[in-house]
This record gives sequence, structure tokens and C-alpha cells, in this order.
Amino acid sequence: MKNPIPGMSKCQDAQRRARECIPGVSQLLSKRPDQFSEGVWPGYFRSASGVEVEDLDGNRYTDFSIGGIGATVLGYRDPVVDAAVHRVVDMGVATSLSCEEEVELAEKLVGLHPWAQMVRFTRGGGEAMAMAIRIARAATGRDTVLFCGYHGWHDWYLSVNLAGEGLSGHLLPGLSPTGIPGGLKGSAHPFAYNSLDTLDAAVAKAGGKVAAIVMEPLRNQQPAPGFLEGVRARATELGAVLVFDEISSGFRIALGGAHLCFGVEPDMAVFGKALGNGYAINAVIGRREVMEAASASFISSTNWTERIGPAAALTTLARFKDLRVCEHLVAIGRRVQDGWRSLADRHGVSISVGGMEPLSHFTFAEDHLVRKAFLVQEMIRRGYLASTTFYAMYPHTESMVDAYLAALDEVFAEMAAAGAGLGRLLEGKPAAPGFARLT
Amino acid sequence: MKNPIPGMSKCQDAQRRARECIPGVSQLLSKRPDQFSEGVWPGYFRSASGVEVEDLDGNRYTDFSIGGIGATVLGYRDPVVDAAVHRVVDMGVATSLSCEEEVELAEKLVGLHPWAQMVRFTRGGGEAMAMAIRIARAATGRDTVLFCGYHGWHDWYLSVNLAGEGLSGHLLPGLSPTGIPGGLKGSAHPFAYNSLDTLDAAVAKAGGKVAAIVMEPLRNQQPAPGFLEGVRARATELGAVLVFDEISSGFRIALGGAHLCFGVEPDMAVFGKALGNGYAINAVIGRREVMEAASASFISSTNWTERIGPAAALTTLARFKDLRVCEHLVAIGRRVQDGWRSLADRHGVSISVGGMEPLSHFTFAEDHLVRKAFLVQEMIRRGYLASTTFYAMYPHTESMVDAYLAALDEVFAEMAAAGAGLGRLLEGKPAAPGFARLT
Repeated sequence: MKNPIPGMSKCQDAQRRARECIPGVSQLLSKRPDQFSEGVWPGYFRSASGVEVEDLDGNRYTDFSIGGIGATVLGYRDPVVDAAVHRVVDMGVATSLSCEEEVELAEKLVGLHPWAQMVRFTRGGGEAMAMAIRIARAATGRDTVLFCGYHGWHDWYLSVNLAGEGLSGHLLPGLSPTGIPGGLKGSAHPFAYNSLDTLDAAVAKAGGKVAAIVMEPLRNQQPAPGFLEGVRARATELGAVLVFDEISSGFRIALGGAHLCFGVEPDMAVFGKALGNGYAINAVIGRREVMEAASASFISSTNWTERIGPAAALTTLARFKDLRVCEHLVAIGRRVQDGWRSLADRHGVSISVGGMEPLSHFTFAEDHLVRKAFLVQEMIRRGYLASTTFYAMYPHTESMVDAYLAALDEVFAEMAAAGAGLGRLLEGKPAAPGFARLT
Repeated sequence: MKNPIPGMSKCQDAQRRARECIPGVSQLLSKRPDQFSEGVWPGYFRSASGVEVEDLDGNRYTDFSIGGIGATVLGYRDPVVDAAVHRVVDMGVATSLSCEEEVELAEKLVGLHPWAQMVRFTRGGGEAMAMAIRIARAATGRDTVLFCGYHGWHDWYLSVNLAGEGLSGHLLPGLSPTGIPGGLKGSAHPFAYNSLDTLDAAVAKAGGKVAAIVMEPLRNQQPAPGFLEGVRARATELGAVLVFDEISSGFRIALGGAHLCFGVEPDMAVFGKALGNGYAINAVIGRREVMEAASASFISSTNWTERIGPAAALTTLARFKDLRVCEHLVAIGRRVQDGWRSLADRHGVSISVGGMEPLSHFTFAEDHLVRKAFLVQEMIRRGYLASTTFYAMYPHTESMVDAYLAALDEVFAEMAAAGAGLGRLLEGKPAAPGFARLT
């Protein structure tokens, strides 16, 4: 006798209300219930601690899914980070003066990345990337950006779709350039990860006048020997600003940007997500001669001066170091990836696994969206938030991983037994297609 | 014997460090010490409460300056708002699921503005305006924006300077379009507040194909009879989206947008600052048929899902209503404006006063930057943070205003007595030119 799917009347009611008044239901594509299985995914939480989440109906889950979409690396309600937040709330978070924490955080980030000397902050990742592009354009006096990978919602990035080159090979298949001004056509060209040839082709399209080369230093695969070095050499030769988008990759395999593992230095790097353990804070760091261009432009926003962001980040960075968090994330992520592969083998279910260990995911070779929804549903029945993505958090232990894999073993067995009839076992909807990180 | 300027070694040290590692020193132009008087303005705070601020050196001031740049309307450390923040920190601020507070806040904002049905959130004001422009462009399939007033740091707005039309009559005299892609040239045209003629001229420049008309419903002057109605009629006729930027004006003269006082309904409105009482939260609200365009574009960001912003905003809105905050802000602001005028008269110092009452400012007819710095300096000596801008907060009382005006009376007397020799009395630097809100 299987456990029933828990009752979710309050969660479903919140989703109904959100569909009424929030276009897209969620502020973030990756948190939309339809990305998992609408009708089954709870969508809304009341409280959380460590890797445990309680939904609005009082159901409790162990979270082996998107880990706060990669933002809560120390786990939910880290006591030390939260104590720092409580402390600044009790001292005042915003006044007519600035808080010293932003200076301390800037100094700390520069200390972790000796190639950088200056820092600016935002409270959103897409916004931080837009700031980096503004600064790179101001520093070079050029407009054209070459990029690889995912960089958020702003015009500079989505403008690539105006040229019909599309983000199809990069992120968002079928995305139309709705709302992007036509004048940006030709201002951005994509290239493929681990392919200097495609970068050279993009350089040619730009006529050699390149403001910035923008990329995630790694995402789904390791950099091929010479690739990052080749990108660096081309940026230098072109006089372009090399920007590493470390919003997802930062503070997961190194105490700082992932690029610290590869010995290649950019001219700017952008951080977020992990930096604040769920509190909103993003940083743009860079070489002094590049960053000084920010002073010549106008880059200013009221909410960038609030105190919680930098206070949370300072404490988060200290925790990362003290607890050797990155080593743990890599070990946990590897254990999960190995487990996925071995379960797939055992049950004859074909999957492909990708991602750096702390940001792991897999794709079913067949019927991905139905199988994903079935996995979501059956793991919820077993007390897990789980999907085909697993973002590791510090409180994930090896024994938790083993218990999770044991539950997943049952689900893969049911999936294999159901064969082509799997769709009929869904209590919710199949997963909606999201974006593929085809970097 | 005058009080000395208090010692500020820690504040000055923080400023020195910030100049090393933060381009522009501050995340916000309006909080740069050089906007007041460099060498005298403390720049950094340790703690604050009500309208009292303590700097890093332990000096305490009563804040009659920029009131957290208009974000902290309930005053510093409002106990009820802060209790709501502490509560959500203790429940978890970010997980793999969403928080219900964002749905509640969306419903609340729609309830306050019955013309609107849908809402999206950001954590920055410039970012929220960029989102509004994206949605308006997506909803109309057009690119060109006509605007009046100040709307932040993003490309869509600063692009006007590419055409040489300049923001000179609008905001930022002499600002170069550094870092703005040339392809945006001609995508934005300015018009003047209370001038339908200049709006019509802008419409003609756009060839009648207008995505959005964007403006602050009021700022420095009251709308002339028929002006807002005329803008509304033109937007409707053109099929353009009318966007009211209420980031500064919202929740100061009405419980909601200032437009609620004028009986003219936009298609979208954007809020921030006051909405979160110093916690980062911004909202874009709009009619359903416009906002649905957001779903067709890609507008998504991790940090927009954190919980502190909407939790703080919900409580702030309840406080605004319970305490009848707007009435108090208007009364306090009027008392300050009246006081300024009467002091200026008494001492024969010529000033011009502007701004809606809760956001008041004045300009010295002669030697503004030197006189402003002298005012800053002499008010610091008397225990005040003060400048030529005064943003009212709820804990400002009438007797506080009277004490402030009594101190300012002495300063105006000294200023009048010093005449042309005033510059020699400065212990810091003259104020740097900031931006003029010449809407």
C-alpha cells in the first residue's frame, strides 16, 4: 500500500491565487510548479530548516531538488548567517548614511580574487550582469558582446534572438525576442563552450570590435585543455573585457569563483546566489582600470544600499571557509550523480547526467517530461522534494543521500515496470519544458 | 563658543577604504559624502532608531536630511516591520518553493489600485522600471518610449542622451551616454512636465508609434489642470502603455500611488522605496492585458523570490494605513517648507523651495554648493544630519521640526553675516553637483 500524495489544499489555493495576480505565477521560471508537476508540486512553503521544508499544509519534505535554486548553500536558516541578519535588523538596515558592511564585503571579495581591485553591488543577478555589461561597454567604448551560457533576463542578452541566431543552442529554445528593442540587433553574438572556433566566428561577426566576452567558466562540462586560456588570449588581443558570470558557479568548487580552480583570470566576475545564502546580494568585481568606468556612467540604485545583503554575505563567506563547504558540496554531488547512474543502469532506464557536482542534473533519454513528473510525484509521496536537478547544500549528509537514493530506487523500478503506460500513473501534469542549459 | 565638528576618524577611514575599492564610493549617487560636504559628512552609520542616527565614531544625529533617500518612511527600525522581518528570518527566507507573502502583497497592491489586476516584483527600482519597459514593449510590439522625469540607471532611459536631446532638461546635466549601446539611439524621447506641447512633439518624433509614456505623476510641482488627463488621453489614442513611476511619489500623499489623488489611471505603476521601509522590495503593477505580456517574454531572477521584501512591505502597508502616515508626512513637510521660506526671508537669503511636501528641497539662488556645504557643516555641529533636501519620516514631530528650524535659523544668520567670505568658513569641501530633478 503506497503512501497517498499528501493533501495540499492551501498550497493549491495559493497557486490559484498566484495565477490570478502574478503573470507567470512565480518571480522565477525555475520555481513555477509546472516545471515539476502541476497539481502535485506544493509550490509554497511556510518554514524550512537545514534541508527540511514544510509546505503551507504542514507537509514536511527533505529537499533534494533545486536547493533554493542554488542560493542556499549553507542550508535553510543557517544559524550563524541568520544571527548576523537579526543583528543588523536590530541596528537599522537603511538610513541616510551607508553601512560599513558593504566596504568590508568589497575588501573581502578583492582579497579572495587578487586580480580584482574594485567592487559594486546589486540585489539581483540579471541586474548585476547588466551592470557588468554597462561597465565593460563604458570601459571599451564599444557595444558588441560575445557570450556563452546563461546570463539572465536583461535586454543585452536576449537581444541575440533578434538576429535569428537564437539562444537555441544556448538556453531558451523557441524564446521570442518579445519586448527587446530592435536597435539592439547585432549587438550580441553567441559562441559554444569548449569551442574556440565558434568564438572566432563570433569575433569575425563583430568585426573584431568587441566590448566584452561573457561566459560561465564552467557549467555542464569541464573546460577542455586550453579553452579558457584561448578565450583569455583572444580577449586580451581584442582589447575586450573578459567577464566570468559566476552567479551559479561561484563558491561551489572554490572559495570564490570557479575560475580560481583553472588558473585563468578574467577582467570582471559577477557573483550572487550562494553569496548571500538566500538573502539578496550580488557583486560585480573587476580590475581597477575597468571598474573605474562605472564612475563615468550613471549606475545607482536606492535598494543597493541596504544592509542585510552585505551582512549576510560576509557571514556566509566566513562559514564557507570555516566549514570547508565546497569540498562537502562536491562530495555530496558526486555521490548523487554516481547514484543516479547506477540506478539507471540497474533498471534499464536511459539517462544522461551533467553539471558540476554541486549543481547536478540528468535527462531521461525518452519521455523526459512525463518521467520527470512521475519522479516528482512518487518522491513527494515518499517525503522528498526531488526532480531531475539536484543542488547540494551543506546540511546534506551521505546517509541522507543514501536514503534518498533508496527511495529513488523504488521510483525507478516503478517507472521501468510501467513502461509506455507511465503517463496514466500521473496524478498531476507532465513537467513543462523549461530551459535547457545547452552551454 | 561653538561646538566643534565631532571627531570622525572611523567614518573618514571607511570613506578612504571605500574610495579604494568601490567606484563612485557609494552604491547610490545621493549617498556619496561629496553630495553633502566631503570631510565633514560622516558617510557611514553604525545604528539608527526613529530619526536618530549614530555614526561609526559614536556621534549621534537627528536626521533631517534625505530620510534613507525616501525609503524609510516609518523611520529607522520600525518595531512592527522589523518584527515581521525577524519572524520570516526565523521561518526561512528562501527555499526551493515560493513564499505566500508575495501572493498576499500582490493582492494587497491590486486592492489599493482597483484599475490593476496583476503584479511582479523586483528588489531594485531601476530594475523594476526596466521590467515595466520590457512588458510595455512586449504588450505593444513597439520600441519607442516617451518619458518625463527620473527613472534610474538602465539603458532604456539613459539612451536618450545618445540622440543629443539630452537629459539636460530632465535630470542629469552633462551626463554622457557612456556604456549605452548606439543601437538604442532614437528609442526614447523626453517631454516636460505640465507641457502637453512637448509631449506632442515627442509623439511626432516617434512617428506616432509609441510603446510607453513614462512619468512620475508628480514631483516638484502639482499637475496643471488637464495635464495628466491629456497624457492619459494621448496614451489611449496612441495605443501606448501609460506607466506612472511611483517609486518616489508612492505612499507619501496617498495610501498607494500619488495618482490616486488625481483621478487619472495609468496602465502600469511602479513602486519601491517607501514600500519596504528600507528593506529591498519593488513592485510593477498593471492591467491584466498589459501584464500578461510578461509571460511571453523572459523575466525571471533568483533573488526576486526571497521573503523579506514582501513580508516587510505587507507590514509597512498595514502601518501606513493604521497610523495615517501620509497625512503626517504632508503636515511635517509643509511645516519644514514654510520654515525654510520664513528663515530665508528673515535673513535675506534667497532660496527657491520645491517638491511635494514629504519630499522637499530648496536651492540657494547664489553659491548653492558652498552654502549647502556650510549648512551641512553647521548643522552637524548642532547634532543634525541636514542638507538642502528634507524627506519626512513618520517619527518626525512638530516640536522636532521647530528645534531643527531654530538651529537652522542660527546657520542662516551666520551665512548672511559671512556674505562672500562664506567659502573660507568651510571645514570640508563644497558640495559636488548632483543631479537636478528638472522635471
